[in-house]
Amino acid sequence: MSSGETDVVIVGAGLAGLSAALKLKEQNRSFIVLEARHRSGGRIHTIKTEEQIAIDLGAQWVSPYHKRVKQLVTKYGLRLTPTYRTGNTIYDFNGVIEKKTGSWPLSLIEALDALKLKMRMNILSKQLSKDCPWKTELAQELDKKTVEQFIIEHGSTNKAKQLFQLLLEEVLCSKLYEVSTLDLLWCIAAAGSIDRLLTAEDYWIEEGAGTLTKRIADSLEGQIQFNQQVQSIEYDADGVFVHTYNQNWRAKKVVLAVPPNLVTRIQFSPPLLADRAQLNERAGMPSVIKLIFTYGKPFWREQGYNGTVYSNQGPVKLTLDSSPTDMSKGVLTTFITGEFARKLGRLSVESRINQIKNQLRRYFGQLVMSPCQVFEKDWSDDEWTRGGYGIHFPIGVISQLGPSLRNPIGPIHWAGTELASEWRMYMEGAIQSGERAAMDVVELLK
Amino acid sequence: MSSGETDVVIVGAGLAGLSAALKLKEQNRSFIVLEARHRSGGRIHTIKTEEQIAIDLGAQWVSPYHKRVKQLVTKYGLRLTPTYRTGNTIYDFNGVIEKKTGSWPLSLIEALDALKLKMRMNILSKQLSKDCPWKTELAQELDKKTVEQFIIEHGSTNKAKQLFQLLLEEVLCSKLYEVSTLDLLWCIAAAGSIDRLLTAEDYWIEEGAGTLTKRIADSLEGQIQFNQQVQSIEYDADGVFVHTYNQNWRAKKVVLAVPPNLVTRIQFSPPLLADRAQLNERAGMPSVIKLIFTYGKPFWREQGYNGTVYSNQGPVKLTLDSSPTDMSKGVLTTFITGEFARKLGRLSVESRINQIKNQLRRYFGQLVMSPCQVFEKDWSDDEWTRGGYGIHFPIGVISQLGPSLRNPIGPIHWAGTELASEWRMYMEGAIQSGERAAMDVVELLK
Repeated sequence: MSSGETDVVIVGAGLAGLSAALKLKEQNRSFIVLEARHRSGGRIHTIKTEEQIAIDLGAQWVSPYHKRVKQLVTKYGLRLTPTYRTGNTIYDFNGVIEKKTGSWPLSLIEALDALKLKMRMNILSKQLSKDCPWKTELAQELDKKTVEQFIIEHGSTNKAKQLFQLLLEEVLCSKLYEVSTLDLLWCIAAAGSIDRLLTAEDYWIEEGAGTLTKRIADSLEGQIQFNQQVQSIEYDADGVFVHTYNQNWRAKKVVLAVPPNLVTRIQFSPPLLADRAQLNERAGMPSVIKLIFTYGKPFWREQGYNGTVYSNQGPVKLTLDSSPTDMSKGVLTTFITGEFARKLGRLSVESRINQIKNQLRRYFGQLVMSPCQVFEKDWSDDEWTRGGYGIHFPIGVISQLGPSLRNPIGPIHWAGTELASEWRMYMEGAIQSGERAAMDVVELLK
Repeated sequence: MSSGETDVVIVGAGLAGLSAALKLKEQNRSFIVLEARHRSGGRIHTIKTEEQIAIDLGAQWVSPYHKRVKQLVTKYGLRLTPTYRTGNTIYDFNGVIEKKTGSWPLSLIEALDALKLKMRMNILSKQLSKDCPWKTELAQELDKKTVEQFIIEHGSTNKAKQLFQLLLEEVLCSKLYEVSTLDLLWCIAAAGSIDRLLTAEDYWIEEGAGTLTKRIADSLEGQIQFNQQVQSIEYDADGVFVHTYNQNWRAKKVVLAVPPNLVTRIQFSPPLLADRAQLNERAGMPSVIKLIFTYGKPFWREQGYNGTVYSNQGPVKLTLDSSPTDMSKGVLTTFITGEFARKLGRLSVESRINQIKNQLRRYFGQLVMSPCQVFEKDWSDDEWTRGGYGIHFPIGVISQLGPSLRNPIGPIHWAGTELASEWRMYMEGAIQSGERAAMDVVELLK
């Protein structure tokens, strides 16, 4: 049993916790990061192929508007690569496969309908505070409606509605009836617009997002303790004791940089306020499996495809090309989300991979059947996240319990992309939330 | 640190865990019950007034159809008292207060509409398996719909819809948009009919429901360990190790008789299957506060009232007379549920009680303002339940993850009223679930 004393204990070495740590370091505050896993990164996890090509099993994509991510990428000497977009995108709608460049396969009427839906979302999201979206009557009304109801109500053509269903199911990793419209509109408000939210896959980090978190973690050498699951937190107005199986930390403040669904595992004394406890107990992560195939080269490019596939047939809803810029390998990244992820998660690895390959064959032909390597990660199966990309709430939760997502309880402060006000649910949001929590703490410690 | 070995570890000394224990005892199996609280009973909790009158802070009501509860009541030498129904019931709908005996204040058209709604619910519930309500296409359709949508769709008159809103909000302790129709219909199937579900407050245990659980617990002397929060469970095909702060138990099987929202607090090795973990993380308890006023006598009876009030104005939605049969005191029990419970839970005790008293004054006059004693319990504020009466799921959860509510995982079996197939969410369901889990375990140990 080892003990220590510090200004701030940060729980969780995901990007939110690491960002909080960087900020505290900059402000010359002492801190320790306690991480349950043996690695940093949380929902970011990069592994390497034999050829040292980065494979992102978790968070990967960066938008041009992710200024904090871009700053960190530069600071830690990494490179952003634009997602390969030359050539045809494949659209698999209702069993009809279309191959085309540019915009969606929609008629003029359908395109106008989609535009109308987007405008409606943008207008409503602008009426919300991205800091406190639970305020105002409007928020309560929006929180009573599922995203599915919203789309049915505001869309006119089947194709436009199906398009939004596909895109939003991919963003939310959930069936649209599982998520409150307020939750979605908060994400839109935090991204700036629905277009920004739906085109956040413009760049990725060539060395892998996990290389970024690894380098941040390395720069904090000695200030991260791995394999330290926090068991209990005792607190009062003066400070906290944080206990793991074999460490006890005394601190003035604690930043809990873990998603609400994992906060339930910590025993608090005194117990958490009812609102926060109830919020935690309603915060299930959606399901997502990422399955990545590598090939000798990105052969689909030669066939005139950019590797992007949108499908509302499943199980794969989205495929993207993540081949390294030198094209030394071809890398196809596929996403299985929501109900499909649950169903496939119950199968053997082999039958899961076979189902996916069979779907991809319909788009790219026989070559797809013989990958060099296959990597996969079922995030629901990982006890330290239990899903991804981030928590979206069922109806009624944010308007009733939302304030407790960020309100400190005594010396306990909260971080994590779920509560970000800029790019909530993205790496950018994780950084913003971590930096904000750290600055709040620094202010109070003065 | 003390250690032991036994056939079965039961986690939780609520009515489900105690019933499992009774069954194991009857079958001559060795077992131990580990309870986090210093008392048995879980969501059942009886305290006594100075005059030794039982005040039920938690589960209280018994229906004539609760055969298991009635058997236990007889076995442990207790008495069932019929709820006082002589005189006028008070109906406070939309600010209009009506005082009448017998049926609801509805016009013929409205009454027929209510009947139609009830029939629709009964017919649909009969098409569900009460053991496996997640099976069949029908279940998936019903699970996509909130109870609010169902009422709007199937009701015609405002008054009938408002009536169901009031009654079901009281049963579910939630806004109707927070609960899946499948969840409600499962409760109806498990109760036998909507009428049985809505009239389950016919009797109560004069000595208090907690006296029953206390007597069961006493009969298990030495086989319940209190103040033992289970920290972790290691398991494989051969058995389990169950660890608390200061005890280690080796067993062949474990029965987890705690609600799913609390299972998240236990560390499992290997981690739970994804489906069960995700179910736990979506299983928030609704909010309920029970506030009980005692008076020198049940003065409302002299005024011609039976003490029952239904109100859709809130904060109190239902009031019942729980005075002892000898009328040595008057006891008015009030229920504050859902959103109102959350709002009132944030106030001081004093302002909470004042709000309630002011509402009651509108029905019973000035006498209500001077109770002898006031007892209250905010169940959301209790870290070992975090709400009540029981967990109702948002849309999509039961159809996708329902099977994991009861499927054993290795040597881990589940109990608790949430997964009962008879009188789910009632004391009767807790007993049924506990007995079933015990019998499953006994069968496997043969």
